[in-house]
Amino acid sequence: MRDPRYDILFEPVRLGPVTAKNRFYQVPHCSGMGWHRPRTLAAFRGMKAEGGWGVVCTEYCSVHPTSDDGGLPFASLWDDEDIAAHALMTDAVHEHGSLAGVELWHGGAVANLDSRLPAMGVRSRASRNGLMAPPVQTRRLEKADIRDILDLQARAARRAVQAGFDIVYVYATHGYLLSEFLNPEVNDRGDEYGGSVENRVRIVRELIDITREATRGKCAVATRLTVDRSIPESFEAFEILAELPDLWDLTIGDYDVEMGSSRFVGEGALVEDVARARGLTSKPVVAVGRFTSPDTMARVIRNGTQDLIGAARPSIADPFLPKKIEEGRVEDVRECIGCNICYAHDSLGVPIRCTQNPTTGEEWRRGWHPERIERERGLGRVLVIGGGPAGLEAARVLGERGAQVMLAEAKRELGGRVSRESRLPGLAEWRRVRDWRVAQLARLDNVEVFPESPMSAADVLEVEAEHVIVATGARWTTDAVGRHRDAPIEAASGARVLSVDHVLDGGEIPSGRVLIYDDDHYYLGPALALELRRRGLEVVLLTPAGRAGQWSAFTSEQESACAALIESDVEIVTNRVLEGVEAGRARSTCVFSGRESTIAADWVLPLTLRATNDGLYFELLAREEAGRLKSVLRVGDCEAPGLIASAVYSGHRVARGMRETGEAPADEVRRERALG
Amino acid sequence: MRDPRYDILFEPVRLGPVTAKNRFYQVPHCSGMGWHRPRTLAAFRGMKAEGGWGVVCTEYCSVHPTSDDGGLPFASLWDDEDIAAHALMTDAVHEHGSLAGVELWHGGAVANLDSRLPAMGVRSRASRNGLMAPPVQTRRLEKADIRDILDLQARAARRAVQAGFDIVYVYATHGYLLSEFLNPEVNDRGDEYGGSVENRVRIVRELIDITREATRGKCAVATRLTVDRSIPESFEAFEILAELPDLWDLTIGDYDVEMGSSRFVGEGALVEDVARARGLTSKPVVAVGRFTSPDTMARVIRNGTQDLIGAARPSIADPFLPKKIEEGRVEDVRECIGCNICYAHDSLGVPIRCTQNPTTGEEWRRGWHPERIERERGLGRVLVIGGGPAGLEAARVLGERGAQVMLAEAKRELGGRVSRESRLPGLAEWRRVRDWRVAQLARLDNVEVFPESPMSAADVLEVEAEHVIVATGARWTTDAVGRHRDAPIEAASGARVLSVDHVLDGGEIPSGRVLIYDDDHYYLGPALALELRRRGLEVVLLTPAGRAGQWSAFTSEQESACAALIESDVEIVTNRVLEGVEAGRARSTCVFSGRESTIAADWVLPLTLRATNDGLYFELLAREEAGRLKSVLRVGDCEAPGLIASAVYSGHRVARGMRETGEAPADEVRRERALG
Repeated sequence: MRDPRYDILFEPVRLGPVTAKNRFYQVPHCSGMGWHRPRTLAAFRGMKAEGGWGVVCTEYCSVHPTSDDGGLPFASLWDDEDIAAHALMTDAVHEHGSLAGVELWHGGAVANLDSRLPAMGVRSRASRNGLMAPPVQTRRLEKADIRDILDLQARAARRAVQAGFDIVYVYATHGYLLSEFLNPEVNDRGDEYGGSVENRVRIVRELIDITREATRGKCAVATRLTVDRSIPESFEAFEILAELPDLWDLTIGDYDVEMGSSRFVGEGALVEDVARARGLTSKPVVAVGRFTSPDTMARVIRNGTQDLIGAARPSIADPFLPKKIEEGRVEDVRECIGCNICYAHDSLGVPIRCTQNPTTGEEWRRGWHPERIERERGLGRVLVIGGGPAGLEAARVLGERGAQVMLAEAKRELGGRVSRESRLPGLAEWRRVRDWRVAQLARLDNVEVFPESPMSAADVLEVEAEHVIVATGARWTTDAVGRHRDAPIEAASGARVLSVDHVLDGGEIPSGRVLIYDDDHYYLGPALALELRRRGLEVVLLTPAGRAGQWSAFTSEQESACAALIESDVEIVTNRVLEGVEAGRARSTCVFSGRESTIAADWVLPLTLRATNDGLYFELLAREEAGRLKSVLRVGDCEAPGLIASAVYSGHRVARGMRETGEAPADEVRRERALG
Repeated sequence: MRDPRYDILFEPVRLGPVTAKNRFYQVPHCSGMGWHRPRTLAAFRGMKAEGGWGVVCTEYCSVHPTSDDGGLPFASLWDDEDIAAHALMTDAVHEHGSLAGVELWHGGAVANLDSRLPAMGVRSRASRNGLMAPPVQTRRLEKADIRDILDLQARAARRAVQAGFDIVYVYATHGYLLSEFLNPEVNDRGDEYGGSVENRVRIVRELIDITREATRGKCAVATRLTVDRSIPESFEAFEILAELPDLWDLTIGDYDVEMGSSRFVGEGALVEDVARARGLTSKPVVAVGRFTSPDTMARVIRNGTQDLIGAARPSIADPFLPKKIEEGRVEDVRECIGCNICYAHDSLGVPIRCTQNPTTGEEWRRGWHPERIERERGLGRVLVIGGGPAGLEAARVLGERGAQVMLAEAKRELGGRVSRESRLPGLAEWRRVRDWRVAQLARLDNVEVFPESPMSAADVLEVEAEHVIVATGARWTTDAVGRHRDAPIEAASGARVLSVDHVLDGGEIPSGRVLIYDDDHYYLGPALALELRRRGLEVVLLTPAGRAGQWSAFTSEQESACAALIESDVEIVTNRVLEGVEAGRARSTCVFSGRESTIAADWVLPLTLRATNDGLYFELLAREEAGRLKSVLRVGDCEAPGLIASAVYSGHRVARGMRETGEAPADEVRRERALG
């Protein structure tokens, strides 16, 4: 069944005292679950083992209360209770013959918002918690602290063995404590831990040794490190340590590239740096690169770039990626779109979610399996109206559940907003949300797709379905009501206000200067600005936030987006609310002082809120004949406009919960809690 | 013992079927604990009951998963497990004869990051989670949803009765769901719930009725509502509802004033609005106003402004405020300084903390009582060096514990950074951190304070103390190394770079244009700018953030601070990193594009990091004679520069953990967790 070209991916790899059954390696990555949600985490990680990942790691795992990431859901191995919590995860992983890894972590310049103890650093630096960082500094560590750090690692490593882990990390990158030692701009120590490269890597070497000792031949010792041609010294450091760990987990210097969104970074962005380091060690190397193509994976193994295919996001989007390749079902792989909505939610302090995989984080809470959906007898004919992300997902799930599904899409092209938005600069990969679902529908005999089929309420009733799901999406409003205003803007005669949909539909703007009023704060404002620049228009992006694309800081895209706007000569005006539009200009007020000013603009494009296309839904509910239907439901943006991830989730949830009788499901939300 | 002028504060107040034993009423306020931390919460709230608050309420408490505040620590009454969790709190409150209240909440435009169900609103609006809000909208609610909302309130109210609450809220303000009904700009309904004021208050009236019915005479029904002279209609709404609840909890329209920081808002900011409403009802009225003066409290009761003294922050800063007034110990009251660091930490997703009260949030975890500190025999003579916030607190705690304390301060004035910073515009109330501690020390016979006593290592050893605590603070650096740079700026000859300490010490800047480079992002940048403007200098504030004082968004001060800067003609330059200083100008680069530009500046004031004053500490450790000492410890900024709250906490923690032997305490951090 399996394509022999991919056989190489299924070779076992020896990692010191343990052996990974194949080359699919889920590197440590945040989950938004951490020590708070052990059952949620175990089910989430265990699902990847079930899906064929030979190694499954946990997230950054604090060794001691002197390093916590309070406010964010970090993991910990502080005590016996933590051992019991992690054992749930290692059991779930071992059940499928995979190895479980743990990334022991001392954070350096974190704020310790939980423990309230001073955090430690090589020197006293500002806390680095990104958007949330309060202005507190670390304690500069002393020689005795270095002994403590070694001891804490040893103790945590022993706990890791007790918890059943097979791989234990020394975590020497991502700006955390060990990065401070390695960085000559930060490490100003005059002793044997500072100065030369040899001295600066000393603590990493000692941690590797002590971890090996503490795990007594039971675990592989992995080391996560930066190798980067723009930091030539990084290879010197690597060479010194090259043969010490059992396994290298390598990354590069720029986190925004390492886990770059597809808007700015493509597949395999680390390969050149990793390949160079691979040539300097005899130990196996793993590295990420948002690999979703088995051809690329096989190539980077064959050409000696790396030994294991590291993955975070692709393993979230499809926990069964390895198994699908193994079973010769490559076309079934649900490829990550690189939107980073997963990472964003960890930063928001909640379990991660995924645009492509609505079951992410729901494995324990709702008992959702990403590949096996409960069939329901007697669902009968279900009509889904609208082929956007919510409608496609609902049709797919109902198809899997055995319903006779008819999917009616008004336009020729399926995909709804996904198709329209993915034509904007940088968003091409987002098409995968549509393409995967369209391909899945095509192999379901019980699903029929009807493009170019706009439906009236009468049309719907004529179909004589048992259930109707309305997924008709939303349209952008032009009154600029949004986060920062409840009342519509004043539009004087001669004002030229356009809808975002006009641009998304490819509608023309003949010429002149376009003002985008961005009260949405995510990717669309910058993407529309770049699109209009591509069309040759002059563009100004005006926003009530302090930065363009403010919320995309959570997806690690904000700085790249602003750089792109600046490079493309988009004018950015911040901290202002749009008040009115006149011929040739717009009025706005300062969010702080209320002071008003005007700015030249031939066209104004408010990017604020969307209005639901729910006319059909309500018309159906109002029709007496609708009484014959067992249920009339709506999903996605036509109910509550949101992220594409929200729409897919909504379609999935409603379709998965549908009962033959049309009865609404309980929609209970289990929680992990301290009592009960 | 009690001053008879304050007798009125201790009169019982009838609230429908229940009676508050006095007029001290802790209104519902966030704790950063929520449903995740029931034991932490019970101990925190229970402590206030012990301290004499006649009513103690919980935080906003969700009635159903269709409204969650995921990512933030909200409370909930969704199910039986929640009942058990809240019962811990009501038991702790009842133990001291106080009433327990619960604020039932339906959030409207929240993002439901936990439940992932669409949130509901009167119309489809943008999520309002402030800094964190992803761009998702609510579902516009239908008539059937209104019935559901009433039903959810009834069910939650019944659970509240089971959990032992005495007061149940209808929460009709703060922009949440009911505010949307009340707001004519948002409520566009054409039915009996929209249009006239009568119609728009209908749902509040119905909720009051259904809550009364559900609680069957066992609980008072409270209603929290906005009354504001700038919204004349708010009094019309109030009049319609005036006699319906058993108790009014009134607030005003501007949240930044209601819980305004002392930088911008004084005590009793709500009294005029509240008094006007008080005249329109026969029901008791509670309102906040950051009341800490019993004279003000007695006055607002006597003059009919309100019936109960509402408090959130003053009850955090001093849970024993009522008891101290009752016992005639008004001078012992630890007054809130209005810094809002409490609120900030809830927004960061962790339990709140308090600058004035280091035991906040530690009642369960560390078993810390704010008023009773374990005595330790044989501590002997303890020398504390430095009379800033950490040293003052350490001396106080050690004094309470029975040590012979000597506090040596180099300057004439005690208070350290608190004294210096509180001279800046808006920060006068922060002096309370110093003044309370100085007054407490004065009544401890076993504490001696030595101002103008700089200490060398030799001086310290001469004292022959058993223990030494170094609390020598930190000084501002001038190399601009900080969050956004690890390497010092280039300073060309002729560059005039000043330290922040120069300004804090009252040092002169003769004339010209001063550039403050703010990579600290909290209050000091704007406060220094206003100070220099007050001195008549031209000021530009340049920051790598998108807004001046970015982090003070967490303390709800950022917008007010920016407004003040703009009104004072401070030039604000954002998104730029300082690179170098030359005579008459500074060079900076754009954080996104790296593009460089110059800006005119006669003086440059880097506000970035502080260097620890730890010379004495290390000299002591290096001295052989120090072997005679049982311990040499350091606290506060001289260990790890941080918030004033960090310094007070550090001094408290170290002093409270000190053992006679000098042995370090375990410093264990208990956690509430899902397993174990």
